Formats: sequence, structure tokens, C-alpha cells
Amino acid sequence: MGIVLENVIAPVSEDGTTNTVNLRIKDGVITRVDEHPLPVSRGDTVVDGGGKFALPGLVNAHTHLPMSLFRGMADDVPLDTWLRDHIWPAEKRLTADDVYWGSLLSLAEMIKSGTTQIADMYFHTNSIARAVSKARIRATLSYGIVADKLDEHGKSQIKRARETIERWDGEASGRIRTAISPHAIYTCGRGVWAAAVDLAQDKHVPLHIHLSETRDEVAWAVKEWGQTPVMALDSIGVFSVPTIAAHCVHVTAQEVEIIAQRGVSVIHCPKSNAKLGNGHAPVVSLLDAGINVGLGTDGAASNNSQDMIEEMRMASLLQKASTGDPTTLPAQEVTMMATRNGANALGMGAREISVGQDADIILVDLSGVDAMPAYEPFSTLVYAAHACDVTDVIVAGQFVLRDRKLLTIDEEKVKYEVNRRIGRLSED
Amino acid sequence: MGIVLENVIAPVSEDGTTNTVNLRIKDGVITRVDEHPLPVSRGDTVVDGGGKFALPGLVNAHTHLPMSLFRGMADDVPLDTWLRDHIWPAEKRLTADDVYWGSLLSLAEMIKSGTTQIADMYFHTNSIARAVSKARIRATLSYGIVADKLDEHGKSQIKRARETIERWDGEASGRIRTAISPHAIYTCGRGVWAAAVDLAQDKHVPLHIHLSETRDEVAWAVKEWGQTPVMALDSIGVFSVPTIAAHCVHVTAQEVEIIAQRGVSVIHCPKSNAKLGNGHAPVVSLLDAGINVGLGTDGAASNNSQDMIEEMRMASLLQKASTGDPTTLPAQEVTMMATRNGANALGMGAREISVGQDADIILVDLSGVDAMPAYEPFSTLVYAAHACDVTDVIVAGQFVLRDRKLLTIDEEKVKYEVNRRIGRLSED
Repeated sequence: MGIVLENVIAPVSEDGTTNTVNLRIKDGVITRVDEHPLPVSRGDTVVDGGGKFALPGLVNAHTHLPMSLFRGMADDVPLDTWLRDHIWPAEKRLTADDVYWGSLLSLAEMIKSGTTQIADMYFHTNSIARAVSKARIRATLSYGIVADKLDEHGKSQIKRARETIERWDGEASGRIRTAISPHAIYTCGRGVWAAAVDLAQDKHVPLHIHLSETRDEVAWAVKEWGQTPVMALDSIGVFSVPTIAAHCVHVTAQEVEIIAQRGVSVIHCPKSNAKLGNGHAPVVSLLDAGINVGLGTDGAASNNSQDMIEEMRMASLLQKASTGDPTTLPAQEVTMMATRNGANALGMGAREISVGQDADIILVDLSGVDAMPAYEPFSTLVYAAHACDVTDVIVAGQFVLRDRKLLTIDEEKVKYEVNRRIGRLSED
Repeated sequence: MGIVLENVIAPVSEDGTTNTVNLRIKDGVITRVDEHPLPVSRGDTVVDGGGKFALPGLVNAHTHLPMSLFRGMADDVPLDTWLRDHIWPAEKRLTADDVYWGSLLSLAEMIKSGTTQIADMYFHTNSIARAVSKARIRATLSYGIVADKLDEHGKSQIKRARETIERWDGEASGRIRTAISPHAIYTCGRGVWAAAVDLAQDKHVPLHIHLSETRDEVAWAVKEWGQTPVMALDSIGVFSVPTIAAHCVHVTAQEVEIIAQRGVSVIHCPKSNAKLGNGHAPVVSLLDAGINVGLGTDGAASNNSQDMIEEMRMASLLQKASTGDPTTLPAQEVTMMATRNGANALGMGAREISVGQDADIILVDLSGVDAMPAYEPFSTLVYAAHACDVTDVIVAGQFVLRDRKLLTIDEEKVKYEVNRRIGRLSED
């Protein structure tokens, strides 16, 4: 009653060498990787993977699932207008049911583009967890805390964060984990940060935060905290707990050192940073410092996709453009960021294709007219393949996409439910 | 015996306002655009375009079709290594048949991503023209001249360029036009440029050239010609004939003025420029100077796609990232670059959706989980849609893609023919 993937092209060693192999999957893990044909038992699902690249599922390590409801609502506007005149008013109208259907819309897009694991930060987290359970992928979920002080409001925010952890950590057969998310330095006061760190220590969950995303954020921190964001948060011991920090676009050389020393994982979001005009994160410096750098799309309101193949492509091209060096962030390295590094940051799921690893595996057809000839599978994946070349997605040993068909989400129902909500959400 | 497209979303005025309309196409042109249902005659093809964006076909105004044979052959390497150790040796092995099948591979990808018109520069132009005729899209074709001097070799290069014009200009019911292509300032001497300009004047065809693509090219021109490329070529009267200039990444403010004054069309190739580490063209300055700026993918060896939807996305995001301004190159403007401006540069094909225009029309499904909700069609197209959301492509009033199926190219045959060639082309 396992799965046998025959004749797939797969990275079979640490250095990224690829080979045509056969894979057996049973009880949620990879049990065989063999160049020779594998025996097939009655009840096994056998898939012909000829011409397809098998790799660990893509990890979208920073997103806001329900924001697909706002995709394209306000593009090409200044950051402040975008937030104050469009996103925040629209978010105030969101119901728990809106969040559920918006999350499923993102999850449908994600699975169809090869994502098997995500880290999300938002509110109405019960709805998001229900959607993730239904979609059957892995997720690290957190309630986004926004509070100036640890007053009544601040305490109620911490309480919500605690409730999300207590209700959902370890659920969905362990595919759901949780984090605690003080949103950012400019939205949370010192007391709130301290309470969040205490809660993270108490519950043994990581922090998942926004860090040094915009120039304004850095200027604000210098004015209000007397230091740049990384230095400011480090000075109150935030990074004493495991931390997943999204963005890190505007960080000094000293801050890169601190991030490395504290073992913080950085989640690079190149498309969102580009589209909002926030600039280029110093990815090469971060990697050179030994930092675990993963990739994320950010929410679909600022991307506007939840497509990690495109995110890998943009990560590489934006760095090559900004450095002027075509050897920057080569295809294999950026694939490692989107797979192994993401899994390392979130602490679960497949890191590579080898025996004993979690069976989070995607198949990408490299034989389409958009992708062929596939001289080098990583290059083809990163620079030429498209989301729709992803044919199959397996999470924890079970198919969630088979031959381009979603098995856990009713796509037409999701489209119907989203469409009947957008009029209300976008009203002036 | 016409085509009726019902209930499509289309830009119906100069300012880009979109509306749901019905379109009638007959004898290669748009004959009706109406908000009310159109009468249907026996023999008409009627297409339900509900939820689909109808826009003028995308114009890929700078490419090298056969280079899809080298897609992914050598990525992430320095520009010089890429050219000298990989591309040039592989090009030496190309036969006329290789060029034919490689061109069809690119054309298959292009049609499936909404392109109806291209400008190509390469060699074995007879093979390219045969492939374009078969694919049934519009093309401006040219032989790429490489010659230091107007010696025997230089004259034979000019002769080949002339033969391409005489053999192919106006063929395929006028869908094929030609240009003359002195390749670049660093590959053609003064005498060759002068002969090319004479030929362009004689034949009434435009020049299609590479211009100011790399920093090395600018340094070379300053050393060898005593001036930067635009100034150097202008000094010998090159821009006295209509010119399509690809790249223009490294141009001074004075050169932007010259380009504007001479009416040169610039073809921006953002992905290729990024991937080769060549930098960002000053697109906003070029547009502000009143220059007609189109978009191109460049060849698939440096892109690695022939996908104009992705090229539009990258054009906008790369400029937003480099300028730090999220209002730079908004969705509608970049769509105009990829449609109207490209058609203006090449002098044929549809410029907009209106009565009397050539019926080069594509339908893009904006209702997929990757694209919806479509608050604003241009935003959805540029920032969210994918190549595989293109459902139908009409060129000069005839379908070349219908419901995602290529009608003029046998996709499996192309894949077979390309696959049996790549071993020979990539040998050391």
C-alpha cells in the first residue's frame, strides 16, 4: 500500500548530482532510492515519472494565506497608500469564513505550483488551521500580534497567540506546528516583545517575525529605539529563542553578524520586496555568513503569486541584476533555499531525496515546450519551468495533487466562495 | 465564416478602461466591438470568452528563435565563458534543419504564452522563415551580420542579408517582413555599418540591432570608436534609417536624447539583462523622453523563456526594485509596451482592440486559482497570470491556439526532433 515513483530524475547526493532512479514511499517516508526497478506489491500506486524531476517539496516559509482575497486590489501604488487606503480597511471587513476560503485559494495555488509546507502569520488563525488541515500540507501557523504596550489590548493579543499554540500545535497528525508572531518592531512595543519571547520559551515554539523590511522601518527604529531593528531587538534578548525572520532587506554588516551568531533563519521574499519598491536583500552576504536563508512569497496582495518556482527564478535574477554578476545565486543553490533551508527554518518536512526522509515530494515535468531541452535539471527548474509543469505533489506520503488534479481541495467550490465575497471586501 | 468572441473582458478605450464586450472577426480584421450580443451566421466560430481577458497579441520584439536548442546549456557562468566556451561552439554545429526545429520549439512556447508577432535575428534565416510560415504568426526576420570590414567576408555577409530580404519580405500573406541586422558595434566595422544602412535605404526595411547591452561594449566603443555606442553609430548616420535597437541598458542622458530625436525604437529585454548580469535599462527615462519602448525576451539561452507574460512581470518588478518606487512601470503601461509599442516598432499587427485593427487577439483566463480575483484585468495579467492561462491565440483572423491546443505546430514531433539533436549540439 505504498507509492512507487519510477524513472524520476532526482538529486541523489549532497552536491546535487542528479540521476534517474526509482523511489518507494511507505508510511509517510522514503523507504527506497534505487537505480534498479523496484518490486511492486498489490495495492501500490505506481507512477511513471519519465522526464520528470523529483525533488523535496517547496517550502514557502513566509506568507499570509488569506491575502489572496486582495490579490490585485491595489497594485502600482505607494506602500503607505497600499496599506492605509486599501489593505487595512479590507482586512477590517474579513470574517472568519472569508479567511477560510481565502486560505484555501492560496493553498490551491500553492499545491499546484509544488509547495508542500508553509509558514503563515495572520489572524482568524482557527480558520487558517482548518483550511491547512483540509489541504493536507505542512504548516507553521501563528497569530500576528500588533500591540504598542502590554496593556489590556496587548495582553489579549498575547492570549490569542497562546490560544493558537495550545489549540493547533501538533494537530493534523503533526503536520501543523505553531509559532509566535510579534508582527514587527514598528507594531509591537518592548513589553509585548518580552511577553512574546517568554511565551516562545514556555511553549518551545519559534518566533516568526517581520524584520528590516523597509527603509522607513529602519528609520523608525533608529528614532524610537535608538538602534536599527536587528540591534534593537537583539538588545532585549529577542533572538535568544529560535527565530524565523522574514525580509532582512536593510541590514548592516554588523547586523548580518548578529543574525548569524544568534542562529536566526532569514526568509528572503524577493518578489514582494521588488514589487513594493523595498529593494534587494543582501542574500549573498547572508549566505556567506553561514545564515540559513529560506524563501517565501509573502502574501498575494504584494506578490501577487503564491508560486515558489517563480520565487526561485526571481530570487536568482534579481540578485544577478543588482550585483551585475551572472554567477550569483545559481540554480541549485536557490533550489536548496526553497527546499532544505526552508525545512530547516521550520523544523519539519523533507530536506532531500534519501531513505528515511519525510515523503514530501513533487514531480516537475521538464519535457514541455517551455522547459526542454533539460540539459541540467536545476537550471531547467529555476530558469524555465512554470507552475503548470508541476504534475504531482506528495505530502507525508500521500498525494495532494495527481496529474495536475487537486485531491484535497474542491477548486470550483473555492472559486465560487471567493467570488461571492470580493464585492463586499473591496467596497469603498 | 468569421469568428465571434462572446463576453470577453477587453480594453475598449485609449485610457485602458475595460468592459465586457463581444467581438466579430472577419477577413483578418476586427469588424465589430459591441456590448450587445452579436448576430451569429452559419459557419461562424463562436467562442465563449466569459472570464477571459481579450487583448492584442503580445509582440516579442527581440529574440533569436533557434537558441531554445541551447536553453539551460550553460547557466550561472560569466558572460564571456557563456559565449566563448558554450554558445559560439554550439552555434558552429547548427545545421539548417537544427535551426528549423529549434525555431519551432520557440514558436510553440511563444504561441502557448500569447505571442502573435516577433522580431528575430539569426542565421540560416531560410529555415527560420519556413518555421515562422508554418507557425503562422507575424515575424520580422533578419540575417545577423558579423564582419569587421567590408572585405570579401563582409560583402558576403551583406549579400546574405540582402538575400533574406529579397526572398522573404512580404511572404506568408504579408505576415513575414524583414530587416537588416548589423549585429552590434563590437562585431561590425564602420564600412559594414555603412553598407547595411545603404541596403536598408535601398530596400525600405528597418535596421534591427543590438545596442549598448553590456558595460564591456561601451568600454570597447570608447576605446575603438572614441565614443559611446549610440554616439558612435549616430556619428556615421546609422539612425537615419528606421531602427529597432535591442537592450540600451547603458546609455547616457545625451544618448537618450539622440535615441528620441532619431525616432529609434528601443526593445527592452529585462530578463536577459538580469540573468547575464548586465543591469537595468533606464526604461522610465526612455519612456519619459517619448521613445517607443517595446519588450523582448532575447534568445532562450539567456532568458530562459520565450514567455512575454513573464517578461512583462519582470519588466515591472525589476524597475520597481531598482528605483525603489512601487508606482514605476504600472501594469497597464507595461502591457502597452508588450502590445502597441511592439507593433509600432515592427510596423504591423494589432495595436489595440478596435474596429479595423488586425485580428491578432489573445484570450487569457483570469479565473484560475493563480490569478483570481481579477479586480483589475491589467494587474491580474501582469502580476499574477501565467503562460498556461492563455487559452486562445488568433493571428490575422485565424486561430493558431484553441483551448490550449496548438493548431499549426505538431508539438510532439518538435519535441522528438529537438531531443534527437541535443546530444550532438552539446558535445564537448
